[in-house]
Amino acid sequence: MLPSCTRCSLPATIRTVLKSASGLTASDPASDPASMSTLKGWIKSIRGHKNVSFISISDGSTYEPLQAVYRGVLGPEYSIGASVQLTGKLQPSRGRQEVEFLISKSSVLGPCDTMEYPIQKKNLPTKVLRDHAHLRFRTTQTTALMHLRDGILRDWHDWFESNAFTYIHTPVLTSSDCEGAGETFSLSSNVFPDRVNLTVSSQLHLEAPTHAVSRTYTLSPCFRAEPSATPRHLAEFYMLEGEVVVDTLDGLMDVVEDGIKSTLKSMLRGTTDRSERLRDALLAIRSSDVVRDTMADLNTTMYEPFARMTYAKAIKILTKHHAVTPFNHPPIPGHGLSLEHEKHLAADRPIFITHYPAAIKPFYMLPADNDTVACFDLLLPSLGEIAGGSLREHRLSHLEASLPSEEYAWYADLRRYGSIPHGGWGMGWDRWISWITGVDNVKDVVAFPRWVGHCKY
Amino acid sequence: MLPSCTRCSLPATIRTVLKSASGLTASDPASDPASMSTLKGWIKSIRGHKNVSFISISDGSTYEPLQAVYRGVLGPEYSIGASVQLTGKLQPSRGRQEVEFLISKSSVLGPCDTMEYPIQKKNLPTKVLRDHAHLRFRTTQTTALMHLRDGILRDWHDWFESNAFTYIHTPVLTSSDCEGAGETFSLSSNVFPDRVNLTVSSQLHLEAPTHAVSRTYTLSPCFRAEPSATPRHLAEFYMLEGEVVVDTLDGLMDVVEDGIKSTLKSMLRGTTDRSERLRDALLAIRSSDVVRDTMADLNTTMYEPFARMTYAKAIKILTKHHAVTPFNHPPIPGHGLSLEHEKHLAADRPIFITHYPAAIKPFYMLPADNDTVACFDLLLPSLGEIAGGSLREHRLSHLEASLPSEEYAWYADLRRYGSIPHGGWGMGWDRWISWITGVDNVKDVVAFPRWVGHCKY
Repeated sequence: MLPSCTRCSLPATIRTVLKSASGLTASDPASDPASMSTLKGWIKSIRGHKNVSFISISDGSTYEPLQAVYRGVLGPEYSIGASVQLTGKLQPSRGRQEVEFLISKSSVLGPCDTMEYPIQKKNLPTKVLRDHAHLRFRTTQTTALMHLRDGILRDWHDWFESNAFTYIHTPVLTSSDCEGAGETFSLSSNVFPDRVNLTVSSQLHLEAPTHAVSRTYTLSPCFRAEPSATPRHLAEFYMLEGEVVVDTLDGLMDVVEDGIKSTLKSMLRGTTDRSERLRDALLAIRSSDVVRDTMADLNTTMYEPFARMTYAKAIKILTKHHAVTPFNHPPIPGHGLSLEHEKHLAADRPIFITHYPAAIKPFYMLPADNDTVACFDLLLPSLGEIAGGSLREHRLSHLEASLPSEEYAWYADLRRYGSIPHGGWGMGWDRWISWITGVDNVKDVVAFPRWVGHCKY
Repeated sequence: MLPSCTRCSLPATIRTVLKSASGLTASDPASDPASMSTLKGWIKSIRGHKNVSFISISDGSTYEPLQAVYRGVLGPEYSIGASVQLTGKLQPSRGRQEVEFLISKSSVLGPCDTMEYPIQKKNLPTKVLRDHAHLRFRTTQTTALMHLRDGILRDWHDWFESNAFTYIHTPVLTSSDCEGAGETFSLSSNVFPDRVNLTVSSQLHLEAPTHAVSRTYTLSPCFRAEPSATPRHLAEFYMLEGEVVVDTLDGLMDVVEDGIKSTLKSMLRGTTDRSERLRDALLAIRSSDVVRDTMADLNTTMYEPFARMTYAKAIKILTKHHAVTPFNHPPIPGHGLSLEHEKHLAADRPIFITHYPAAIKPFYMLPADNDTVACFDLLLPSLGEIAGGSLREHRLSHLEASLPSEEYAWYADLRRYGSIPHGGWGMGWDRWISWITGVDNVKDVVAFPRWVGHCKY
């Protein structure tokens, strides 16, 4: 869609002003009144000299603040964190920047008490920033994280659209609880006659339209009432889930692998304005302290085939390794994998672990043989599990035999009337953002994180 | 993004097969083995003759089912609602369709008991369909509604991106309650120490990043624990909300008006594949019984300026009208407008009603004068209120004087440190879909509707 805001008159941003001046030459354009712009933003830093003041301002449209110059002395109300309105024009800079904004008129819109302002220092500890989640958007890193979440989500939407998936708004309030692990939040109210839960996964609800539309997806908030406070867990998180008419587990894994590779390629190799913004955001995030080096991981992920290995083989490899270099917890056949096991298996490339024992997986997964189900977990280097999926039990009689309760009769109906082989997957959205940025803790990539004991704002 | 599913091998859809054959000529292409396709879908209708059977199948990629022809007699398991896999090729049709799919091989994937199947009849009453919300996706109308929600949402995302808005995932769980109307669902759990509510609006949370990013938006589930069961209310609904650094109420209304017009134009006049799909979906929905005529409304909305009128003037007009043709409820200065008042004011075009009395509006709205606030409600013909917005009180001392409680101290902080004039709006997403499609009840445009007494599935 072309920019169509013909009637609305949103003001210029630093980004648009810089773009429009990308051909600026060394000759002073000060005589051209058409080049005057008015910008609003927040002061990131300020330096005063005898006859000239330099202020760096940000409006969230770029990550490198714009240097503005004022020929004179600015009052003390021009402090870090204050919002300002500046009218002026770009000129070639004599400093390190290519251009600077020569201020002809300025005013403070909102002052900021520098004695009290919690965000003025650079590189504040993440703990301090989490305690001021409502203000941490004003750090370059958090601004860039919000842009990155936005841009890569758009890339995923484009990928789903190009593969004929339809976005479905699945519900948050539900009378089912999907995996039934006792980790659901429940709601008591007199609006509904029965117990209502907050959804833990949109899968079951997404399977219903898949039986008409063939390919569906959603990005929905999900909720787990677990007391876990690890860097990978939140009480409220977003999950990207897809369901698709597909025959084989390999076919399903192909879809997931393609989605991940395509969106990474779009971000890292794309030539659109969005791709450029995404790369700028990624650089801004990665230039801060809290980030580990992941750029190599992203390149490997983008180009090389993901490994695929059965659970049985994985257990063998882990057991062998454990005999030489013990894990904290030994791998036990028939049990789930722990984080250290996952990290070992995915040490150098993404890997799908398939065919877990049926006994440790939920009722809706399609059996692969007597003991295992046609499922996968996708493990990423240094993170572990990012996504899980399976073929779904599509045979009515088998499904009915394992249905947990009467409440799932509607789910069995999907197989009663025109069942179809299909499968699906869910990917933790916040973990995904954490992994591609290298920001280790999901609490730091979410606008307002909620975890055990914490639901501020 | 170009289709990039090189490794994944999702099967053909009816849409892609029809597209690839759009140049099909009257000469029989049966000798070209490359034109063979395998399709999966559901039987919408079936007719058998002595030596030939005709079945119409749908896979959700088109709204007009594909006519398939089998030279022979199909068994009774080929019934309405059954899912099938068909291999064959397109050929010019001798019937009313341009093309038909000549079946060379077929199998039933999932049978469907026609004695039990609730969806086999055409034009079922909406009540019946609501009682089978998990199966109603299999009606053409609901399939088309899901496509339409998907496509127009993408158009909105594009519009926001082209205007430099950043998408923010605002939280569902909150310790604030925004409008404080006592209509919030609350959650008791031992995960959080205090009372936690389900959000009624993302506005307050969206204002925080706006103080760094300048333009933000979200489409988030919202919850109202009200016992209302009108065609316009749900207990869980989606709201499209935006916040933007802007100085004037007119400037804010310009943004909202532009968003609505731009996305409508994209749907109704666009030349992309998505626009085409949207128009097909709209036609499919509108060709069913339950739809009133709205096409004229959409054209007016797209091209003509929205009216703008103060609340004071609106009350005068309503009072004058009431004296001649009484409303059920008289308009009363200082009170809100009822639905019949809204419909009268918006009888022939969308209208913004501005400057409501401060006494009936929430604490965060910016005063316009002694008695009114700088706010608007946007009313649409035959629907009434679709959106509401305001400039926000950005002056710390004024905001602090009206803060409802200590819990909002974080919200006051946004004004304490670099406040900035700004405003925002919220638009009921499900009402919007209801209005553009002409499907009068929001319960029928939502995948799994929840309202008082109803939280099935």
